[in-house]
Amino acid sequence: MLRTLSVAAAVRCPLRLSRPCPLPGPLLLGLLSRQVREAAGSAGAECGSVLKTPKGTRDHHPAQMALRERLFGTVVACFKRHGAAAIDTPVLELRETLMEKYGDNSKLIYELQDQGGELLALRYDLTVPFARYLAMNKITNIKRYHIAKVYRRDNPAMTRGRYREFYQCDFDIAGQFDPMIPDAECLKIVHEILSELQIGDFLIKVNDRRILNGMFAICGIPESKLVTMCSTLDKLDKMPWEEVRNEMVAEKGLSPEAADRVGEYVQLHGGMDLIEQLLQDPKLSQNKLANEGLGDMKLLFEYLTLFGITGKISFDLSLARGLDYYTGVIIEAVLLQQENDHGEESVSVGSVAGGGRYDGLVATFDPKGRKVPCVGISIGIERIFSILEQRMKASGEKVRTTETQVMVATPQKHLLSARLKLISELWDAGIKAEMMYRKDPKLLKQLQYCEDMGIPLVAIIGEQELRDGVVKLRDAATREEVDIPREELAAEIRRRLETCTTGNPAAPQPLPSC
Amino acid sequence: MLRTLSVAAAVRCPLRLSRPCPLPGPLLLGLLSRQVREAAGSAGAECGSVLKTPKGTRDHHPAQMALRERLFGTVVACFKRHGAAAIDTPVLELRETLMEKYGDNSKLIYELQDQGGELLALRYDLTVPFARYLAMNKITNIKRYHIAKVYRRDNPAMTRGRYREFYQCDFDIAGQFDPMIPDAECLKIVHEILSELQIGDFLIKVNDRRILNGMFAICGIPESKLVTMCSTLDKLDKMPWEEVRNEMVAEKGLSPEAADRVGEYVQLHGGMDLIEQLLQDPKLSQNKLANEGLGDMKLLFEYLTLFGITGKISFDLSLARGLDYYTGVIIEAVLLQQENDHGEESVSVGSVAGGGRYDGLVATFDPKGRKVPCVGISIGIERIFSILEQRMKASGEKVRTTETQVMVATPQKHLLSARLKLISELWDAGIKAEMMYRKDPKLLKQLQYCEDMGIPLVAIIGEQELRDGVVKLRDAATREEVDIPREELAAEIRRRLETCTTGNPAAPQPLPSC
Repeated sequence: MLRTLSVAAAVRCPLRLSRPCPLPGPLLLGLLSRQVREAAGSAGAECGSVLKTPKGTRDHHPAQMALRERLFGTVVACFKRHGAAAIDTPVLELRETLMEKYGDNSKLIYELQDQGGELLALRYDLTVPFARYLAMNKITNIKRYHIAKVYRRDNPAMTRGRYREFYQCDFDIAGQFDPMIPDAECLKIVHEILSELQIGDFLIKVNDRRILNGMFAICGIPESKLVTMCSTLDKLDKMPWEEVRNEMVAEKGLSPEAADRVGEYVQLHGGMDLIEQLLQDPKLSQNKLANEGLGDMKLLFEYLTLFGITGKISFDLSLARGLDYYTGVIIEAVLLQQENDHGEESVSVGSVAGGGRYDGLVATFDPKGRKVPCVGISIGIERIFSILEQRMKASGEKVRTTETQVMVATPQKHLLSARLKLISELWDAGIKAEMMYRKDPKLLKQLQYCEDMGIPLVAIIGEQELRDGVVKLRDAATREEVDIPREELAAEIRRRLETCTTGNPAAPQPLPSC
Repeated sequence: MLRTLSVAAAVRCPLRLSRPCPLPGPLLLGLLSRQVREAAGSAGAECGSVLKTPKGTRDHHPAQMALRERLFGTVVACFKRHGAAAIDTPVLELRETLMEKYGDNSKLIYELQDQGGELLALRYDLTVPFARYLAMNKITNIKRYHIAKVYRRDNPAMTRGRYREFYQCDFDIAGQFDPMIPDAECLKIVHEILSELQIGDFLIKVNDRRILNGMFAICGIPESKLVTMCSTLDKLDKMPWEEVRNEMVAEKGLSPEAADRVGEYVQLHGGMDLIEQLLQDPKLSQNKLANEGLGDMKLLFEYLTLFGITGKISFDLSLARGLDYYTGVIIEAVLLQQENDHGEESVSVGSVAGGGRYDGLVATFDPKGRKVPCVGISIGIERIFSILEQRMKASGEKVRTTETQVMVATPQKHLLSARLKLISELWDAGIKAEMMYRKDPKLLKQLQYCEDMGIPLVAIIGEQELRDGVVKLRDAATREEVDIPREELAAEIRRRLETCTTGNPAAPQPLPSC
């Protein structure tokens, strides 16, 4: 049953670190690069061996987990800074909860086998379960975040961060509020997170479904073609207008004149000036929907100006977003250039955040069709993770995967009991401590392990120290050793590492890799 | 398609807190009780409505998430204190990875529909994927933890914390080491976590598969009956020996004499004294396996004595553990009494932690059958969560679900711009701040929201403050108000809340509910 794999050299633990580090915390010090390369695909996917993860999925090694937790930390800190509460919903949903919510993409939903009982499927995103949650619990007012895995039977492109199992990081505001105040906050959040992650220059595009619909209407496009037009329009960031126009005319049956009218609009992008210009546009301003959308867009830009973030925001008439459920503002953030400083192959990433207003989705679940207006954004954490992974690979940067503060070591034989007793005291005092699982390890091996793992301190207890009631505390970096009275050891360890652990706990730590 | 539900009164957000609280952090202050009651079952499960979560699954409301995150925090802090690194594996595994690993329980595995491509299933636990991970990546040495959801098509008993989707919190040590040192650490970890969670008095039972096997052998029980005997034996904590004996004889076809011989042993439990006694047992000590197991058990108790935890450990010859893959020490922690102070219905919980040594599992995945000895424990977090949920429900204790430090408020109309500008400054300074999504909310409403959500401070900016370049900082608890120069506001907020956020970041915060 089990066959040999053509896997690249295995990832080994404990990790070898090239330099000692006196800092606790999962600091980015070591060994990400090799692990990253190996984990980029599910091992052995080509040879049909059973010793693999499913297509489009992957394991996360400790170094990857350290990076991922750091990313999540930044995102969650931002969501909490904006007053959001956490919720969770099951990975499984009733099949009928998900069906008819994703248009053509419904075919990408993982369905469970009928093993008796309910028909189930894996969630495709976090938005539809959120809407189900609101309707089911009759919640009309909540600001929540949800970070969890979703599942799509898509074609994986794993080097670009596209997986079949991947995390979404969603922030949504549900409730009946004054126009554009929550919408502006969502844009502020995207701006904060992309800035803090330092993944490169970015642009946040905004548009409004009402403006799009009005625009299509005045160009003479029937309402029945709106959805298919949006999906064609969505390709404008990948192909020139001429090709998009061709598709509209040749494939979607639009008249050349209508296409040209659309073309005049969708090539426009700008800021407050463009909004003012379109508010004066004789045709567009006559359309009720478009006029409403433009009025709100103006309000939005006023708020964004107060937030001081209009420099990275573009009102872009070509932004359409694929999903059917958007009803107002739509948002998409893209990176402006690839990081490619080290001659490594370029990481091609698409959007790194997206979202919008969906005022009708909750009503589709509510027995009485009650509306709960919602607006939210989703951070494309997998793509960002890919970029940072590749950057670390390129830089050869290393990562610490544990937070151990002190290694308990003995210099002579027959001292296992002394080590066990001392480490137990340290654990009970809340110190992060490790020892080797050997009866009589050589001191050099213990010090080596310490260096390999980036453990900053060593507590050495030998026969002399036992007699004197002290412990020799060694700084792994400077090799300096000082005898500390045993009862003061925990406090001394804490004091030594204090400079690295204090500070403002509310502020997210910067990603050292950036 | 959508029908009305017979759901209990809906959970409302924002949460109403009964008293203001100057502390940041998801403190346990409010409203868990009602939310808990409602979330105990998947709403509408009985009426066949589609507006529900799948059988045996549930949503987590903000108050539940706050409790869950606190629990995870305690568990993760302990795992990290012992030097573990985090890994993650996919929720999906190839079906053949999971098959033949769980004996009869394989029927409880959720299988995915064959939609073309690989045959997949949802993971049943974290141990088999961990073994697959080690073999696939040729890792021979790692100390890892993994906290993630697993799936079992079991009969849910949700008030007792038994779900079809639930979290496991696993800590495992893989590698070839000297006997019982990692095993002793696993017991220390269970002891630390159960002590810190303060869920009541507990007992950690230990036994060894080798002692069990030797015992069965000298009682004349054929090896073919070992597994089925273990599963009968496992019932000793729920029924008296006489009934277990009857099952062995009447159902499993054991001779009454053999059953009586087993009975003599399995009713024994104790500590070092019992180990010494059994090492002198003329029959048991002659059995090679049993003798090896007893020798190691003695070593284990020596180490546990050094850790100072033998008071809560019981060497129990009736402990068998259902799973097939254990090869040495087996562990199970149980609560000694139910918390039932408030006349609420008793929460019946089984074991709250379990584990053991499984030296052969990785080899079943390795193409060359290479062994990687492993020992690990799993914390029964769902049962612990249920106990704490019920306890909070009984006590009417409340929980804070957000960490907002300051509410930005305006006392007059036409000041939305001022609020947006000020809150933006605070966000950019790393302060957790909220405001109402209204153009002109009444000051009273803003203060009320603040009290409802347990936000400790209010930053009030009115016409006078704008003129003076100050902000009025109000303490929600004392109602004291002080004018602060605007450029010093963030620092002042941090200073005010400092007493609550400093301290030793390494030490896990106690669960305030306990």
